[in-house]
Amino acid sequence: MSESKGIAYSQGRYMPVDEATIPLLDPAFTKSDVVFDVVSAWDGAFFKLEDHLARFRRSCEYIRVKPPCSEDEMRRIMAECAVRSGFDNCCVYFLCTRGRYAGGAATGDPRESENEFIAYAVPYYWIVPNDRPNAGAHLWVAETIRRAPNEAINQRVKNFNRMDLTRAHFEALDNGADAPVLLSLDGYITEGPGFNVWILKDGKVLTPGENLLEGITRQSVFELCADAGLQAEAADLTKADLQDADEVFVSSTGGGVMAVTLINDKPIGNGAPGITTSKLSDNYWKKRSEGWDSTPFSDILEPEIPQAAGAD
Amino acid sequence: MSESKGIAYSQGRYMPVDEATIPLLDPAFTKSDVVFDVVSAWDGAFFKLEDHLARFRRSCEYIRVKPPCSEDEMRRIMAECAVRSGFDNCCVYFLCTRGRYAGGAATGDPRESENEFIAYAVPYYWIVPNDRPNAGAHLWVAETIRRAPNEAINQRVKNFNRMDLTRAHFEALDNGADAPVLLSLDGYITEGPGFNVWILKDGKVLTPGENLLEGITRQSVFELCADAGLQAEAADLTKADLQDADEVFVSSTGGGVMAVTLINDKPIGNGAPGITTSKLSDNYWKKRSEGWDSTPFSDILEPEIPQAAGAD
Repeated sequence: MSESKGIAYSQGRYMPVDEATIPLLDPAFTKSDVVFDVVSAWDGAFFKLEDHLARFRRSCEYIRVKPPCSEDEMRRIMAECAVRSGFDNCCVYFLCTRGRYAGGAATGDPRESENEFIAYAVPYYWIVPNDRPNAGAHLWVAETIRRAPNEAINQRVKNFNRMDLTRAHFEALDNGADAPVLLSLDGYITEGPGFNVWILKDGKVLTPGENLLEGITRQSVFELCADAGLQAEAADLTKADLQDADEVFVSSTGGGVMAVTLINDKPIGNGAPGITTSKLSDNYWKKRSEGWDSTPFSDILEPEIPQAAGAD
Repeated sequence: MSESKGIAYSQGRYMPVDEATIPLLDPAFTKSDVVFDVVSAWDGAFFKLEDHLARFRRSCEYIRVKPPCSEDEMRRIMAECAVRSGFDNCCVYFLCTRGRYAGGAATGDPRESENEFIAYAVPYYWIVPNDRPNAGAHLWVAETIRRAPNEAINQRVKNFNRMDLTRAHFEALDNGADAPVLLSLDGYITEGPGFNVWILKDGKVLTPGENLLEGITRQSVFELCADAGLQAEAADLTKADLQDADEVFVSSTGGGVMAVTLINDKPIGNGAPGITTSKLSDNYWKKRSEGWDSTPFSDILEPEIPQAAGAD
């Protein structure tokens, strides 16, 4: 299992991630009462760490949990997880759980809980296959399930309430596709599990804007498009818009910008990864190698000591 | 913590429930990819155990997990949890988790997972307060959140995707109420966390029928109404229907039939528990004491050995 190697931080100590657990009675499990975020690292440096921390802070505020440590401590714990894992390239998950409370999950008062901060590093991964010569991923717009609406499950908050995503994932796999994309209740494309979706149509780059997690990599793609002089904006998109696009790609912390070449068995364009997609992906990795919004582990773990005035 | 005492069964062995855990990387946690059910026991006997097992089977089929044990083994494990806990009166939770799979939760194939069966007993509890002299519970129809629709999260399947319920719970507690009730997206009453809602209006007993878990105790209330010659049926109900009802009550495995006397600060009827509610509640417990759909632990753990023909 690719996720079986890595180090976790839980209950104040570091351990192999396979040994880390959640109490069976923790509402983080029995009510999925937890928020999380995932930041990637490449060559020993986090990417857009502060953006991930800011989103995590908003997620915590929404469900009313408060990590029992400062953001400085979080940064250090997350860097420690990566370094102790021996990973230069990895994804670091970080969570805040509700934790248990007096009276128990069924009848107690969740406002009186002891929230916990957990983090763990896993090897870097690509959320959809990205290694097929001359071909991209096969996405499946789910027909048997819709994405839970923000009115019920606020999808701007990164959460583990994923029964809809999992059901769509089964449908995608059963149909020979790599990953699902879910429609909103009103029939517009939202997102897939762990990624946002994009199309290129008539020179314009478009991505859904409603009922989804606004990915940090999604924000990065807007930046990449601006760099390239491409017009990019949020838009309501249907399954037909995806299938009729000139190019389709996905964006994710797990892989950056990745080409999609099939939507529900229908080839996109000429069936090969698009030229604009490839340029955006190349530029994503080029900019990262140049230190784009980068925070080296070493800057967190061994901060430079400011030179005292007058010292010699 | 009332739930801190009890025995759990996990990974093939029995242990104090406080020591039972879920692996941090199990999709049962990171995707809430798990179904469950809860059966109550009183005086050493389960109530409607077969109905709970049948619903659990349907839940498992929906998310495509298969407990790695037979239903006979489940019955025995659940009775063992209760007996080893020393509980005559308790609730026994039983779960089937997705379990881990090759490739990890982010990129692996959930169809190739090793599903796990977990059970645990906790002391019997009342899902809303049921011990106030001349007063019932205060329910709060949530205004800031709606119940996730079946199109996204199938609520007929008993699941842990409860971010909507938890947010509503906070709203209820913040307003001094005991528990929330959630509206569907189209504005009709659905359910609260762990219970169904009922009204008595002009001699008729009504309960919502859409976008909710069809409780086993809900089914029991239909039986109790039939016994009492009361007309009972499913109906679309609004918050105003609750507030204008002659009586309001809830039904749950955790407490049976329980009076509600306030809805969003508005007293129901004369503000005291209703006469019909009290009769239904009394009859619920009377029938249970008489062995209604009852399965004693001892029948499961020490089945009577059929006498062999011709033995003397």
